[in-house]
Amino acid sequence: MYKAKAYSAASATAPLASTTIQRREPTDRDVQIEILFCGICHSDLHTVRDEWNSVMPTIYPCVPGHEIVGRVTKVGSAVTKFKPGDLAGVGCLVDSDHSCPSCEANLEQFCTNATFTYNSPDKHLGGVTYGGYSDSIVVDEHFVLRVPTNLNLAGVAPLLCAGITTYSPIHRWGDIKGKKVGVVGLGGLGHMGVKFAKAFGAHVVVFTTSPGKKEDALRLGADEVIISTDAEQMKQHAGTFNFILDTIAADHDLNAYIHMLGLEGNITLVGAPDKPLALSSFALLFGRRSVSGSLIGGLAETQEMLDFCGEHNITSDVEIIPIQRVNEAYERLVKSDVKYRFSIDMASLKAE
Amino acid sequence: MYKAKAYSAASATAPLASTTIQRREPTDRDVQIEILFCGICHSDLHTVRDEWNSVMPTIYPCVPGHEIVGRVTKVGSAVTKFKPGDLAGVGCLVDSDHSCPSCEANLEQFCTNATFTYNSPDKHLGGVTYGGYSDSIVVDEHFVLRVPTNLNLAGVAPLLCAGITTYSPIHRWGDIKGKKVGVVGLGGLGHMGVKFAKAFGAHVVVFTTSPGKKEDALRLGADEVIISTDAEQMKQHAGTFNFILDTIAADHDLNAYIHMLGLEGNITLVGAPDKPLALSSFALLFGRRSVSGSLIGGLAETQEMLDFCGEHNITSDVEIIPIQRVNEAYERLVKSDVKYRFSIDMASLKAE
Repeated sequence: MYKAKAYSAASATAPLASTTIQRREPTDRDVQIEILFCGICHSDLHTVRDEWNSVMPTIYPCVPGHEIVGRVTKVGSAVTKFKPGDLAGVGCLVDSDHSCPSCEANLEQFCTNATFTYNSPDKHLGGVTYGGYSDSIVVDEHFVLRVPTNLNLAGVAPLLCAGITTYSPIHRWGDIKGKKVGVVGLGGLGHMGVKFAKAFGAHVVVFTTSPGKKEDALRLGADEVIISTDAEQMKQHAGTFNFILDTIAADHDLNAYIHMLGLEGNITLVGAPDKPLALSSFALLFGRRSVSGSLIGGLAETQEMLDFCGEHNITSDVEIIPIQRVNEAYERLVKSDVKYRFSIDMASLKAE
Repeated sequence: MYKAKAYSAASATAPLASTTIQRREPTDRDVQIEILFCGICHSDLHTVRDEWNSVMPTIYPCVPGHEIVGRVTKVGSAVTKFKPGDLAGVGCLVDSDHSCPSCEANLEQFCTNATFTYNSPDKHLGGVTYGGYSDSIVVDEHFVLRVPTNLNLAGVAPLLCAGITTYSPIHRWGDIKGKKVGVVGLGGLGHMGVKFAKAFGAHVVVFTTSPGKKEDALRLGADEVIISTDAEQMKQHAGTFNFILDTIAADHDLNAYIHMLGLEGNITLVGAPDKPLALSSFALLFGRRSVSGSLIGGLAETQEMLDFCGEHNITSDVEIIPIQRVNEAYERLVKSDVKYRFSIDMASLKAE
């Protein structure tokens, strides 16, 4: 074991503060990574504040962060994919059982024995796993991603969660070239959804409650913007969408978006409101539409997404902050006051 | 025009009562049918009592009935599929615009200009269309189905709505041979769902709140029965279903059934509760499951379903009643006191 610097929360109401944590020495199959940037995901905030207590209670101290990009500093003797000096990424998963039907289908995110990057039982050291708000991390090679060398690293970090979360459902839905695709909400997830849908050739329409976001939506690649509170605009587009990506993590009128779908259209949820949404059966029956959920992606698909980003020069729009401003960033995140993701420059932690 | 005998409701609170209505003389493309049996669908009751006022207000007088089977008495000069003496069926639709994308895809049920069998604007006579609680009906040939000659006609009538409503989503879902398929609710729709899922080779599991229905579910073809109020039974089967057909038209715990689905499992709603259902986003995200809706079927698929029923000797289990007992039947329908569909013997109307 060795000591690593980190920021942790001591309780649901405590601010994140500087601390020291234990990391394991790399085993034969492990990769040790010096963390350069870590994105701030809304899940970090939900977990730190124990807001998902009913489904995934938080164990304290909690070191969040699962949008990790860095440089390899050491590899175990059995590691074949990485060598010291390589760029590397780590997302929401750091282990799984490798043997269940989900793992065999390269869908490690649905393995019932998956180990999440933070707040999951740590098989090596006991306690729970500690995430990327730290200067280094040690991860099984299978869960470490190769990172394209042509991209801005601060903007790569959020791809490991916000990127794969939006890429996966858009990519799996089928050929969206020329199709009318909606993105509900223009935040950390939504702005990535716009970029991916555009890169796949869709006619991209952003739904937002904020008229002020229109210009930025167009800059990000949207072809049209609908102000969802404008009943007339909504009516004009009713029944015309093939696919809608719904990124809203708060309560909202799901049925209004189902009505936007055409025949056999699908709306996929990637946000996780803590309370159930109201679902109108009529809205689904007419047009035999569907509502799906999607959760990040498996490791193979995450690598595919990163390679796609390298080819298409796609990164997240980020505001870079030092880790000392993380608590202030959380307050701004609650108010959606960020375009579009905070990325923590971990040099600020090393300098402490 | 000619006069036909019928039962109609004068208002949302009036009982159905004997009356005389106008039917058009068959045009060149029309088929005139002497109605032999008409099933009682829950939609009839909702419409008669104006319970769907917010989506489809009822125009009175209202003659319901869209599960019609009878014998052809006259055909127009351009009719090619039928001749007098043939058996014929009519379901929920009697016209559409024949030119929209839905019609061109043989999905007339989603044509925005579709004419429903009752309570829809009547293009020929003005007013609204009158359904099958009558001794005869005149319908465009395209909307008249051929009926296999080897089946019990009283049990054929409900196939025109309950049959196609359940056949369509089960059949479209894909090859369910050997798959674990659930049917939620064992009423008019549910009992047909069991028969179709079984005929397609699925391992069929019925979810019911009524332990008393277990024996009957097994008789109808179910392989297993789960009492949905038994938490232990539900837990044992969690995550194991490929597909679930949800036939419940009242409020119920949709998320409990979503949790029954395995990876990428789907639950399709065919019932239409008047209030929204509570939908947990988490339940969809983990396992990237989906909820769909399905609404009857197009004419081609309805014909395919009837042919399938002929080949597999499938009909609805019915209780035959004279039309004079229709109001009593409605009261029993509200209490789910019927196994599993009322079928009105229209000889009782002719004898009035």
